[in-house]
Amino acid sequence: MLFEKIKSEILAHNSYIVGAGGEAAVIDPRRDCLIYAQIAERENMKITKIFETHKNEDYVVGSRELARPTGAEILHGAREEFGFGTGVREGDTFRVGSLELEVIETPGHTVESISLLLRDRSVSDDPLMAFTGDALFAGDVGRTDLAGEHRRQEMSQMLYASLHEELLPLPDGVIVCPAHGAGSVCGGNISDREFTTIGYEKATNRLLSMDEEEFVEYKVNEKIYEPPYFEMMRRLNREGPPLIYNLPHLRPYSAREIRSLLGKKAQIVDIRSPTSYAGGHIPGTLNIWREGLPLYMGYYLNYEDPIVLVDDFNLDLDSVVRHFVRLGYDNIAGYLAGGFAAWFKQGESIERVGTWSPPDLAEHLEDPSVWVLDVRNINHREEEGHIRGSHHIYVGHLEEHLAEVPADKQIVVHCDVGYKGSLAASILKKRGFSNVTNLLGGTIGWEAANYSLVRD
Amino acid sequence: MLFEKIKSEILAHNSYIVGAGGEAAVIDPRRDCLIYAQIAERENMKITKIFETHKNEDYVVGSRELARPTGAEILHGAREEFGFGTGVREGDTFRVGSLELEVIETPGHTVESISLLLRDRSVSDDPLMAFTGDALFAGDVGRTDLAGEHRRQEMSQMLYASLHEELLPLPDGVIVCPAHGAGSVCGGNISDREFTTIGYEKATNRLLSMDEEEFVEYKVNEKIYEPPYFEMMRRLNREGPPLIYNLPHLRPYSAREIRSLLGKKAQIVDIRSPTSYAGGHIPGTLNIWREGLPLYMGYYLNYEDPIVLVDDFNLDLDSVVRHFVRLGYDNIAGYLAGGFAAWFKQGESIERVGTWSPPDLAEHLEDPSVWVLDVRNINHREEEGHIRGSHHIYVGHLEEHLAEVPADKQIVVHCDVGYKGSLAASILKKRGFSNVTNLLGGTIGWEAANYSLVRD
Amino acid sequence: MLFEKIKSEILAHNSYIVGAGGEAAVIDPRRDCLIYAQIAERENMKITKIFETHKNEDYVVGSRELARPTGAEILHGAREEFGFGTGVREGDTFRVGSLELEVIETPGHTVESISLLLRDRSVSDDPLMAFTGDALFAGDVGRTDLAGEHRRQEMSQMLYASLHEELLPLPDGVIVCPAHGAGSVCGGNISDREFTTIGYEKATNRLLSMDEEEFVEYKVNEKIYEPPYFEMMRRLNREGPPLIYNLPHLRPYSAREIRSLLGKKAQIVDIRSPTSYAGGHIPGTLNIWREGLPLYMGYYLNYEDPIVLVDDFNLDLDSVVRHFVRLGYDNIAGYLAGGFAAWFKQGESIERVGTWSPPDLAEHLEDPSVWVLDVRNINHREEEGHIRGSHHIYVGHLEEHLAEVPADKQIVVHCDVGYKGSLAASILKKRGFSNVTNLLGGTIGWEAANYSLVRD
Amino acid sequence: MLFEKIKSEILAHNSYIVGAGGEAAVIDPRRDCLIYAQIAERENMKITKIFETHKNEDYVVGSRELARPTGAEILHGAREEFGFGTGVREGDTFRVGSLELEVIETPGHTVESISLLLRDRSVSDDPLMAFTGDALFAGDVGRTDLAGEHRRQEMSQMLYASLHEELLPLPDGVIVCPAHGAGSVCGGNISDREFTTIGYEKATNRLLSMDEEEFVEYKVNEKIYEPPYFEMMRRLNREGPPLIYNLPHLRPYSAREIRSLLGKKAQIVDIRSPTSYAGGHIPGTLNIWREGLPLYMGYYLNYEDPIVLVDDFNLDLDSVVRHFVRLGYDNIAGYLAGGFAAWFKQGESIERVGTWSPPDLAEHLEDPSVWVLDVRNINHREEEGHIRGSHHIYVGHLEEHLAEVPADKQIVVHCDVGYKGSLAASILKKRGFSNVTNLLGGTIGWEAANYSLVRD
Repeated sequence: MLFEKIKSEILAHNSYIVGAGGEAAVIDPRRDCLIYAQIAERENMKITKIFETHKNEDYVVGSRELARPTGAEILHGAREEFGFGTGVREGDTFRVGSLELEVIETPGHTVESISLLLRDRSVSDDPLMAFTGDALFAGDVGRTDLAGEHRRQEMSQMLYASLHEELLPLPDGVIVCPAHGAGSVCGGNISDREFTTIGYEKATNRLLSMDEEEFVEYKVNEKIYEPPYFEMMRRLNREGPPLIYNLPHLRPYSAREIRSLLGKKAQIVDIRSPTSYAGGHIPGTLNIWREGLPLYMGYYLNYEDPIVLVDDFNLDLDSVVRHFVRLGYDNIAGYLAGGFAAWFKQGESIERVGTWSPPDLAEHLEDPSVWVLDVRNINHREEEGHIRGSHHIYVGHLEEHLAEVPADKQIVVHCDVGYKGSLAASILKKRGFSNVTNLLGGTIGWEAANYSLVRD
Repeated sequence: MLFEKIKSEILAHNSYIVGAGGEAAVIDPRRDCLIYAQIAERENMKITKIFETHKNEDYVVGSRELARPTGAEILHGAREEFGFGTGVREGDTFRVGSLELEVIETPGHTVESISLLLRDRSVSDDPLMAFTGDALFAGDVGRTDLAGEHRRQEMSQMLYASLHEELLPLPDGVIVCPAHGAGSVCGGNISDREFTTIGYEKATNRLLSMDEEEFVEYKVNEKIYEPPYFEMMRRLNREGPPLIYNLPHLRPYSAREIRSLLGKKAQIVDIRSPTSYAGGHIPGTLNIWREGLPLYMGYYLNYEDPIVLVDDFNLDLDSVVRHFVRLGYDNIAGYLAGGFAAWFKQGESIERVGTWSPPDLAEHLEDPSVWVLDVRNINHREEEGHIRGSHHIYVGHLEEHLAEVPADKQIVVHCDVGYKGSLAASILKKRGFSNVTNLLGGTIGWEAANYSLVRD
Repeated sequence: MLFEKIKSEILAHNSYIVGAGGEAAVIDPRRDCLIYAQIAERENMKITKIFETHKNEDYVVGSRELARPTGAEILHGAREEFGFGTGVREGDTFRVGSLELEVIETPGHTVESISLLLRDRSVSDDPLMAFTGDALFAGDVGRTDLAGEHRRQEMSQMLYASLHEELLPLPDGVIVCPAHGAGSVCGGNISDREFTTIGYEKATNRLLSMDEEEFVEYKVNEKIYEPPYFEMMRRLNREGPPLIYNLPHLRPYSAREIRSLLGKKAQIVDIRSPTSYAGGHIPGTLNIWREGLPLYMGYYLNYEDPIVLVDDFNLDLDSVVRHFVRLGYDNIAGYLAGGFAAWFKQGESIERVGTWSPPDLAEHLEDPSVWVLDVRNINHREEEGHIRGSHHIYVGHLEEHLAEVPADKQIVVHCDVGYKGSLAASILKKRGFSNVTNLLGGTIGWEAANYSLVRD
Repeated sequence: MLFEKIKSEILAHNSYIVGAGGEAAVIDPRRDCLIYAQIAERENMKITKIFETHKNEDYVVGSRELARPTGAEILHGAREEFGFGTGVREGDTFRVGSLELEVIETPGHTVESISLLLRDRSVSDDPLMAFTGDALFAGDVGRTDLAGEHRRQEMSQMLYASLHEELLPLPDGVIVCPAHGAGSVCGGNISDREFTTIGYEKATNRLLSMDEEEFVEYKVNEKIYEPPYFEMMRRLNREGPPLIYNLPHLRPYSAREIRSLLGKKAQIVDIRSPTSYAGGHIPGTLNIWREGLPLYMGYYLNYEDPIVLVDDFNLDLDSVVRHFVRLGYDNIAGYLAGGFAAWFKQGESIERVGTWSPPDLAEHLEDPSVWVLDVRNINHREEEGHIRGSHHIYVGHLEEHLAEVPADKQIVVHCDVGYKGSLAASILKKRGFSNVTNLLGGTIGWEAANYSLVRD
């Protein structure tokens, strides 16, 4: 029996391929989907079924992309209309070689969410695994806010029922394979264990020990951000996203070309480290570090204007391109050839951002000309505490709240480490704030240096 | 939490790396162990503990090799003396970052066998996974014959106790991570599911539903081969195998050099396909196909004389070298440069083996000059049936039973597919049998062509 | 200054990329052209010019494919109409950064053939290199037969003039970069030195020391085969070949699917070694070994029916696909999943071919039931001699001359080594000859075993 | 005929492998020499000869390393004692298959320098190529200062004779293959053409058109730096360097470990970009960017204390390790796991360096508190001009000239682009200068921004 989990790093999206007897099924494939075909070929299997556990909102689904070369059938929940594939219902079963996949309807995260129960009929009628999509995660459950505030209670009740009537009654020994791991924007507290079981979740997942009332209240009040790009993803994934065939090939841009793009509609994204950005950058550019791209590009980049990258040494840009394609940014266009040095070799102007270590900030904490801005997730601020006197605006919402930031002070931005702080600093610089400093180390460095965080 | 399973293909050996909070542990590392260090580095973790669940007999353990660059501590069961590492006992616990590994003594396969129970203390005190070594597999249990025939009953009783008193009482939701998967020589009937749980094994593993008497009788009578190289492995793994640092680099041999080695102590191994071997080969060479090497080299190759490979196109020999190193064959020396064509370009003599398809054999089944030799595992012969009139000698025992093979007949060798048949044919050719034919397709092809197998 | 030679193995086609000062030019790009873009990016250069030295006939040109992502201008000789690009004339010069490329018209191989003279103007006005296309090779000159027998004399005269009036007057120190290396079908005697100079050719190339009369007579009488696919190449390269964007992805075929294709329009190509093919093969399939594909597929495969590959272990099929794409065989469709073993596991019928070593043939040379068939190039037969009593039909022309082969004898095919012999054997088997044997080692092995060749 | 040039990037060192008829020779192999063995195997050749054109001083020679697995004979000039290999003399010839290599003694760069003349005897007795070591480069000749100031005239005379009596009399069409390309520290003005010829050098190399007096005067007065590590290289290369077998494996260091190393004997090297270093760095660390390592590590790193790297994202450190090994820095030990962020996550102190663009400097050029320091090569300063009012200390000599730098001013360091400037800034910071700024863009950016350089 073939079983492989394919992870999209950082997005923390999990997809799966299972197979036996010459046939294979893929669950929740990503858009850069060559890997599934390669695994199937290595195993001499033919992919015959592709399942979408739900109309994903955090990445572009790969089912159509994968169906093209394989001819596999696409299956998804029937409670909502998709522009492609076939709707399936509770109890529908599908044979994939000697394996059987049974559909369990588990609405709540979305109405058409399904889970899939895997049996190996050549061994036993007992179920071996459950692919739970965004219903049940390791240590968490799916978010219920995406259908809108007005339906949040209803969706939470639905999810409670799905969990307690559909999934938890499964045998303790069933292995749980969710669509996301720790770090995903689809759940606030997903644990980082690779595999879990119904039994282990029943024993350790605190959301499963709540009664319905408690659960619904918790979910209705859960604070969780929705990146603007989710809207685009939902539309694409409902209609069927455009096919890409292969990863796009980036075009090198000269420094001269980059300069001619400034102030135009191009989106120049500086993917260097916070210190590199601080030491000098092209005026008006956003700073999102490599690993932050999947999580933050969706807040600040649009789907129309060409996107051009700036790096130090242009190493391994292919893996960066994947991040864009997975979120549907097919407008990723190129990169600054020669890296940032190509910019300053032209004698071009640069902008700088200050950097402070925790001791630097501690020294100035009482200084009235210093305004400390915390851009972390509100949950982190509330749970872990904050630097005394700091103000809070979430990095993803900074552009809409610029009026709250004083123009005449030194703005010291911080997050938990320094990357999101640098993104926030780049937004402030772009919007005309001239005296901006990023706290390297953030609250983690702050505490490591033995300064304390306070709670309201 | 880091969790990764590293498989050595074909040997079907599983090793694992787990970690959290900057530290990692490796369980049952293989000898070509760079991969564990690479994973740890990728995750910014330090490998601090290496566990050997038992004194493995089917491959060279990698714990000493891995301890060298990492400085990690080696831990193994205390009930037998090892030439390296530290003995551990029931209930000993080890912290690896926020993870905890608890030793459970599970003798039976060997006396010093241990299992390891994993808890993530940052989540819960409930156990998440059990690394069961060669005690419990998916669908099977460890073999109990390796301590010798005279101790087989005793070892089987021990294993019964280990399973029923130590492992099965664990919660159903505990994920079971054994040291071997399907195809291993360490268990006859291991299932090919990647992951299983205590609950699923209790429900589906027929060996676990036997009572002690039934279980011991089954295990005492179980027919299972012991390749001769196990002896060497046990010795190396007890004393601590020689360190290799890196994979050996193969030297190209010219056809002329190969010829000068014939009849000397060198071991020439033809790794081409059965048809390629049949169409022409260097006289006196063994034919073991690529994927058969881990399973059959241990029967026919010694650890002293240099081993030289013959291939068609010399593609990807690196992966072939790994097989030799994992079994301790550090005498792997080189390969025929230019492939088999380099041999015949010299105008050298060749030998041939006949090939028959199932219809060819069916036509001659009554022919008294034809002697059909089945070289499969005896269990396969008994369970699946055999071709009427065929004789049986297991391929691994053929050299000791040559006297049973008539010298004056056409010997038609077969296995289940044709690879082991070709190995057997090469042994017969080497030992002077001149009229040897390999049944391409074996019993699988025989049945696929609608001929029947019989049972005694 | 960037200078890199990109070779297409076996076809022995050379292409070049040169650049300086941020710009690069590519000369005679192949169709799988990603590599040029990658080199240019590595060097922070933009490809601005693509030159075709002539309307190639042995591979699909890559200029249009490469122009698409780079936007580079395509330039070719003006004396014939192309469906794309811009015609250039004697003396036209093109700047590529600080480099200059000057067009020299060198007709003879084709009428619109050009050479390109490279100067690095930042160094000197002296020329550094000449890209001579198919006019001048290391040790040979271009063939002059492709415009048809009736124009051979005229083309040879043209080539003589091009060589003696255009190329040889260049300074001795000019480095010569031709479009082909040793082994190409575009020249019978190209030397295998990577680089040469005008001076070294003048000193060593015997064709250059002939006077015009001698030269034309030599070229008019030169025996050189024209594979049928040249016709297709000329058409494609004149009109502009279809764009492929990326290498096609092969589909795995099951043995069952392959069987259903037999006798239909599919073209099953067995790419295994001659011994593997001899030991057993799917009835009616052609045997062309991996490295023979670029040279022989053009004789026996058509451009319409799907092509499916049979291999032993399906290793590195990607490099095989490149061969097909370079010759325009976009109908390459798939491969037998599981390799040839998947065929015999179904119990399917197989065919065999005999194999003989030189001593085996020597023993039967006088046997009247044996008919020896030499399938080598006629030049090789004439220059190196032949096995006494052997008959000659070139492997590329075998299908048209089957009537010359006696149906009632044992046909022993041979070439120089054994690969082309196996291709010929597969053609004979396919056409109904039942008793076919391939001489492993061919004439090279024959001589190595101390048997002699004779000359008429 | 096999001919391949293997370049060590940045060092601009060229080595060559040539072969024919099953044998190959390597000329001036580098220390990480697996690549030669791989090429030879791919071509089915045996490396039988290794030539050292001279006792190299800028890298560790690889001849002993390569001789170990291949068993090849090492050959070098006889006029100086080596601790390994065999001395050869003018006119000695060596067969490598059908090739012949003839020794030409070409002293001048060193006394035992030799060149090698290649003939392909299967083609002609005319020479095809000359491997000229450090005697003749494309556009330049070897340096003659390394034997000491007192022997400079003598060595220059010797080189003149070698060039005019040994090399230039060769036919114009001989291809010249030198040991270095553009950018090497072994020649100040080597051109960046990949290949050249005797004829092209005679026509374009201005050093070859000088008469002896002019030439010797030029060479005696040539300003060219000698990195301190040359001394070590000469010693190692004379005695035979230690064998390494494989590239060393870097150990990850935690931020805590790095801190504990500060002030101790460890050498922490920050390989990030100048802007990244400027934005924040570990106090007291040197900044040498990736591509500057081969050229500048030899000035500031010793061969005893462990070397630990600091990078942003730890991408492709393997290629960085090669640079160290090639220069004999076997004390390369590890890298900061997690990159520089791991440092600031601990809340550790950081240091910063200012950055200015050319317009920033232009604005302050008259400011008496600003002291501009030019750290370029003196030749560049003299040939290209300098920023008005700037002071000069070569970056490689900065530590010995610190007394010239005023402690109470803002030091604005610059080079031609900004990398060497950052290295100089890091030296100043380490030595206690607190107000240090790096001019991003250097003199190239300065001119690109339309500011002028002056000449004395």
